[in-house]
Amino acid sequence: MTTRIGILGYGNLGKGVEKAVNAAPDMELVGIFSRRNPADVKTVSGAKVYSANDLDNMTDDIDVLILCGGSATDLPVMTPKYAAKFNVVDSFDTHAKVPEHFANVDKAAKEANKIAVISTGWDPGMFSLNRLYAHSILPDGKDYTFWGRGVSQGHSDAIRRIEGVVDARQYTVPVPAALEAVRNGENPELTTRQKHTRECYVVAEEGADLARIEKEIKEMPNYFSDYDTTVTFITEEELLANHAGLPHGGSVIYSGQSADGSSKHVIEYSLKLDSNPEFTGSILTAFARAAAKLNAEGANGCKTAFDIAPAYLSPLSGEEIRHQYL
Amino acid sequence: MTTRIGILGYGNLGKGVEKAVNAAPDMELVGIFSRRNPADVKTVSGAKVYSANDLDNMTDDIDVLILCGGSATDLPVMTPKYAAKFNVVDSFDTHAKVPEHFANVDKAAKEANKIAVISTGWDPGMFSLNRLYAHSILPDGKDYTFWGRGVSQGHSDAIRRIEGVVDARQYTVPVPAALEAVRNGENPELTTRQKHTRECYVVAEEGADLARIEKEIKEMPNYFSDYDTTVTFITEEELLANHAGLPHGGSVIYSGQSADGSSKHVIEYSLKLDSNPEFTGSILTAFARAAAKLNAEGANGCKTAFDIAPAYLSPLSGEEIRHQYL
Repeated sequence: MTTRIGILGYGNLGKGVEKAVNAAPDMELVGIFSRRNPADVKTVSGAKVYSANDLDNMTDDIDVLILCGGSATDLPVMTPKYAAKFNVVDSFDTHAKVPEHFANVDKAAKEANKIAVISTGWDPGMFSLNRLYAHSILPDGKDYTFWGRGVSQGHSDAIRRIEGVVDARQYTVPVPAALEAVRNGENPELTTRQKHTRECYVVAEEGADLARIEKEIKEMPNYFSDYDTTVTFITEEELLANHAGLPHGGSVIYSGQSADGSSKHVIEYSLKLDSNPEFTGSILTAFARAAAKLNAEGANGCKTAFDIAPAYLSPLSGEEIRHQYL
Repeated sequence: MTTRIGILGYGNLGKGVEKAVNAAPDMELVGIFSRRNPADVKTVSGAKVYSANDLDNMTDDIDVLILCGGSATDLPVMTPKYAAKFNVVDSFDTHAKVPEHFANVDKAAKEANKIAVISTGWDPGMFSLNRLYAHSILPDGKDYTFWGRGVSQGHSDAIRRIEGVVDARQYTVPVPAALEAVRNGENPELTTRQKHTRECYVVAEEGADLARIEKEIKEMPNYFSDYDTTVTFITEEELLANHAGLPHGGSVIYSGQSADGSSKHVIEYSLKLDSNPEFTGSILTAFARAAAKLNAEGANGCKTAFDIAPAYLSPLSGEEIRHQYL
C-alpha cells in the first residue's frame, strides 16, 4: 500500500517531513501546501507546491495531511479544520491546551470518519511514550526530563524581539550534576534553575547598548528569569559559522523501585540530534503511516502516540517485525 | 475494573510478578500455581498456593494467567495449553522459535477467544520496542544492543554444570570502547568478542583442578569461546557476600541519519536494574493488564509488545495519561 502524503506549511518542520516522506519506500509526496503564493515557494526536493486553498478539491488525492504549523495560533484552528476532510498528523505542544485540542479534533475526525494523530514529535511524542511505559511498569517512581544541549527556537525568537538585537541562538543545557544525581537513582527534588542553564549567543546592532540587552534577556519572565543565563555577544559571521544548525536532544530518566523498595531501577531514553526539525519530521511521517493504516481498518477519532500500537509505525509486516526487532 | 491474576511457576520470575501484582492498585492476586506439592511452596507475600492441576477448575476465577516458566521446555507447551483457557502472558525468548511459538499460541488463543501476549520482558520486550520505534522513525540506520553489566543466569548455570564447581556467577559486561563508538554515531562493525566480555566468579570443590575448570569454561562453545572471559575463584562466603543479587541492564543504541545523510541522530534506551527478575516481573504484570483490557474489548489471538497500544499498560484513563505523561 502506498500512502499519499500532503504537507501543509513549509518552514523547517515541513522541510524535515518532506525529506522523510521522500525517503519512505511506501509513501508518495503529493505536494506541499502553503498559505503563501505557491510561485514564491521553492521546495528542497522539487516537490510540487499548491495553495492551501487547493486542499478543498484534493480530498481524494491525499491519504494523510501532515500539519506543520505552530502550536500557538495555527494548529488549534488547522487540525480540527483539516481533520474534517483528511487523516491528519500534528505536533501540537501547548500542554495546558491539550484537552481542548483533543476534544475539538476528536469531534471533527469522528464526524468525518478520519484519524487525527496529535502531539507527535519527540517531546511531546517519544518522550511521552517513555514516561508512560516507565510509570506503567514501575508505579513507584519519578520521571525527570532534561532537554539539550540544543537550540530552543522559541527562546531564540524571544531574544530576537529585543530592541537592538539582529539575530540570536539560545542553547538549553542540562546541569551535569542534576543529570548525574538522577541517573544514580537519588530522586532529587530539583528547581527549574537546578535542572537547566541557558546560553545565549547574540548579534547586536552596531552601537547598541549591550548591557541593556543582556539585562533584558536575563530578566525576561518565563523565558530566562528562572534560569542561570549567560549572554555572549558575537558577530553575524560567527553566528553563521558556529551556530547555523538546529541540534537538540535530551533525556527522559525514570527512577523507580520495586514494590517493597528492595530494588531500584533506572530507565533512560535519550536523544542526540543533529537536526531537531528533521528528526521531528521523521516522527510525524511514521505516525502518518500509522494514521493511514488505522483509518484503512475502520478506526477514527483523535489519537496520541499512547493510543497507537507500535507496529503501525513500521512499513514491515508483523512477521517481519518479529523476525527483525523482537 | 480489578484484574484477577494467577501466576504459574514460582522461581525468581514468579516472585517478581507476585511483588508487582500485589503493588498494583487495580489487581488481585488469586494465587500461585505450582507443579510442586503446594504444601512445600512458601510464598513471599503469603499468597495462596494451588496445584497447577487446579487451574482446570478455575477458569472463571482468573482474568490473566502469567506464565513464569522457562523458554527451553516449559513455555512451548505451557503457553498454547493455557491460552486455550485463559488470557496469558509469557516471556518466551528463544528468538529462532518465535514464529512457531507465535503460530501455536495464536491458534489456541483465537479458538478460545483469549488474548496471549508472548515474549515480554526487557529483551525481548522493551528493547524490542525501542528497536522498532527507532527503525520506524529513521529507516536509514543501525541498532546495537549491549547487555550488562549484569548476571546471566543461563551462563551461571552452564558453569555450575562443570565437574568440581559448587556455585558460580557470570557477569556479562559491555566493552566500553565499543559502547563509546556506537554512542558517537560511528556505526562500527563489531564482532561478538568486541561487544562484550564475560566475568566468571566460581566456587570450586576443595581439591578440584582449578586449571581444568578454567579451561573448560573458557572453551565452552556458544557460551564462552567467542568472548574474552576471565575466571576468578572465590569462596562460598565471598559469593554470598558480594554476588547474591541478580542485577542487570543494558542499552539499545540506534544510530541513524536523515534521508540525504546531512544529519545524524543517536537514540539510546538504557536500563540499570538492581533485580532482573523483579523488573521483568513488573513488565509481565503491566502486559497482563493490557491483555485483560484487550480481551474485554473483544480482541483475541497472540500479541507481542509491538501489537499493543502503550495506553493499555497503564491503570489510568486516556485523559489522565495525556495530562500526566504527554
